Amino acid sequence: PPAWDRAGRPLPSPLQPPGIPLAPCRSFSNNKIQVELDESSGIAMMKFKSPPVNSLSLEFLTEFSIGLEKLENNRACRGVIITSALPKIFSSGLDITEMCGKSVEHYAEFWRAVQEMWLRLYGSNMVTVAAVNGSSPAGGCLVALSCDYRIMAENPKFSIGLNEAQLGIVAPFWFKDTFVSTVGHRIAERSLQLGSLHPAPEAHRLGLVDELVPEEKLMEKAAAVMAQWLALPDHARQLTKTMMRKAVLDRLVAHREEDIKNFITFVSKESIQKSLRMYMEMLKKKK
Amino acid sequence: PPAWDRAGRPLPSPLQPPGIPLAPCRSFSNNKIQVELDESSGIAMMKFKSPPVNSLSLEFLTEFSIGLEKLENNRACRGVIITSALPKIFSSGLDITEMCGKSVEHYAEFWRAVQEMWLRLYGSNMVTVAAVNGSSPAGGCLVALSCDYRIMAENPKFSIGLNEAQLGIVAPFWFKDTFVSTVGHRIAERSLQLGSLHPAPEAHRLGLVDELVPEEKLMEKAAAVMAQWLALPDHARQLTKTMMRKAVLDRLVAHREEDIKNFITFVSKESIQKSLRMYMEMLKKKK
Amino acid sequence: PPAWDRAGRPLPSPLQPPGIPLAPCRSFSNNKIQVELDESSGIAMMKFKSPPVNSLSLEFLTEFSIGLEKLENNRACRGVIITSALPKIFSSGLDITEMCGKSVEHYAEFWRAVQEMWLRLYGSNMVTVAAVNGSSPAGGCLVALSCDYRIMAENPKFSIGLNEAQLGIVAPFWFKDTFVSTVGHRIAERSLQLGSLHPAPEAHRLGLVDELVPEEKLMEKAAAVMAQWLALPDHARQLTKTMMRKAVLDRLVAHREEDIKNFITFVSKESIQKSLRMYMEMLKKKK
Repeated sequence: PPAWDRAGRPLPSPLQPPGIPLAPCRSFSNNKIQVELDESSGIAMMKFKSPPVNSLSLEFLTEFSIGLEKLENNRACRGVIITSALPKIFSSGLDITEMCGKSVEHYAEFWRAVQEMWLRLYGSNMVTVAAVNGSSPAGGCLVALSCDYRIMAENPKFSIGLNEAQLGIVAPFWFKDTFVSTVGHRIAERSLQLGSLHPAPEAHRLGLVDELVPEEKLMEKAAAVMAQWLALPDHARQLTKTMMRKAVLDRLVAHREEDIKNFITFVSKESIQKSLRMYMEMLKKKK
Repeated sequence: PPAWDRAGRPLPSPLQPPGIPLAPCRSFSNNKIQVELDESSGIAMMKFKSPPVNSLSLEFLTEFSIGLEKLENNRACRGVIITSALPKIFSSGLDITEMCGKSVEHYAEFWRAVQEMWLRLYGSNMVTVAAVNGSSPAGGCLVALSCDYRIMAENPKFSIGLNEAQLGIVAPFWFKDTFVSTVGHRIAERSLQLGSLHPAPEAHRLGLVDELVPEEKLMEKAAAVMAQWLALPDHARQLTKTMMRKAVLDRLVAHREEDIKNFITFVSKESIQKSLRMYMEMLKKKK
Repeated sequence: PPAWDRAGRPLPSPLQPPGIPLAPCRSFSNNKIQVELDESSGIAMMKFKSPPVNSLSLEFLTEFSIGLEKLENNRACRGVIITSALPKIFSSGLDITEMCGKSVEHYAEFWRAVQEMWLRLYGSNMVTVAAVNGSSPAGGCLVALSCDYRIMAENPKFSIGLNEAQLGIVAPFWFKDTFVSTVGHRIAERSLQLGSLHPAPEAHRLGLVDELVPEEKLMEKAAAVMAQWLALPDHARQLTKTMMRKAVLDRLVAHREEDIKNFITFVSKESIQKSLRMYMEMLKKKK
């Protein structure tokens, strides 16, 4: 379990980006996510550092949810910037090895962890800014979509999207709801059916990300956006956010167990297992 | 109570804008809103003239609702153009003095009047065109959003938006619903959380207003748009409008008393009273 | 009844457009719709050929639904391109003669056929691409909107829209739902109330069609788009499509009989009959 909420070390992190003048801050090095909280500004930074591609394994998701919970409960923290410590990739999405050849119990535990992460992030009372400094397919895209604001490095080699259909699987309804709330029904309908990965400029045009900046300006811009959002009184902003997101959050809460069962049924099918194994083979060859 | 639906005076109003050839018409001078109905064209003009900033006081709202009701029931009237007789301001929104240091009964009466105005305007069978000739924050923006079409003077000093969050308060769910129906979920989510006031060009880009024209062309354009909408058979247009707006209207109707209670609870909080007093102080100093 | 699902004739159709290399295929000539299925590619072509304007008569709709059902049940078919064999017109929409001076029983049968067509097309498991090679008002627009992708000839003389309000009638709620899902609430609200027919460039700007191409490139483009959609695994794509469209489909299924009753009540009104007769007179004079 992470120690950072009990004993913080005020050492400046080597991963600290230029452009954000982080005053003496609490820095916490966990297994898969680096968390730094600058108590003077109230801004935390979460950096995914789980090589090679920040895939959302059960362990990663658990650490992510616990990290969010701790920040949420820390009165000194008002906002979080989420980014990657690895080059070229924000997060590759759900870890397929967690969905392949495992027990029903494992599938249930894994899926509950995916739900938990989303419920915490999409429903967070903090201001959440995604600094998308690399590609962000599937679950990685969901992480970005669940934030309040998305800034992406303008590199056209970086892409983002819910590409589940390309893998022969289907994004769950709450991935879809989050997507529709961001880009509208028509763009979602087409993009989800095609499993599109949109290069950064196209993602910006579609509204999938709010802003593009040169990669070296990304953290500076994220800090500026965060300052703009934190200028609002927390209480009014939080109530407004809840008003906008509650219906979609409630829908998963109301159907959580059913959604887990659906996932297990789906992922247990031999045809799906085969698709996933083929996809993993392809990824291995790519390397 | 206004006399204009019984004994009209065919005198041309001194406030009549150039470009709309109003034939002999019924002109009615009330306390806070000037209403003129040109029976030959079926077009009424409502001009807010409540200095200094057309704020939506209980008295203003009552007069507005009664005016709308009279026009609605007048078979000679098919459309209304809503604009301001004051320079630089369309309407500053809800009158904060009605929400500060008053009794619970007063809060209830005030909030019911806000609801009543919106139910009449958003659900009007008439064609409603907002000629937004000045800034239009909060409740002023709601008035514009509730019309069928919004034309704004292209002056970038004029801004429009639901900026409640800036004041530490929260737009009620039906303000939000009206906003989302106009600009979509994502733009609303961001704009409401930031309490953004969008300069006219940005408001146009976001779809918050339908068209920008030079200020001197505003009334001419409003008349042209009105003519376009009135070219349709009333019955089919009205049924179509109802089909589009009924769900949102019904939602307030179903939760009206609860919404009043929520408002009273919220506005009675000492923290909110303090926010509102601070805001009023700031406005006074601005002058 | 069409014979094409039992005994196909591999003759190349004279209507076959250039640019789609259709291998030996099954071609079926029906009364009002020409259907060709290329079993090697899994792509069918449905060509409306019911002069003068491909209006959706009871007979046309019945043939259309049966044609869709047969293709749907044919495992060799994965996608359908829908286009017109007539110049300048895709489809003029519902056949007004079916709504004028007929019996209540006829109205019911006709309306059920309209519903049936939409339920089959909007809910199709196949990839459906509309190659809109002419104007497409009212029900013609609905056909296009119900496909997965719309490509329109970029001729500004061709227009598309749900213009029912112009005729003094109202688009049913499921026409509206389909429209809103495509272009969003605000554009739909305005366009439906005005009964707008949007010239191709405007239709593209509003998102009513996905792409414009020169008329001579239309079929080539449709084939390319179809290939892109068919590159996805059918199962994942179909489940995703269902996820996006089920709520709107279910709404009609749940209210189908009520919707038929509403149509009968509406169309039986003398005022509506008069509007429709006037419209038909106008159309006759136009010729």
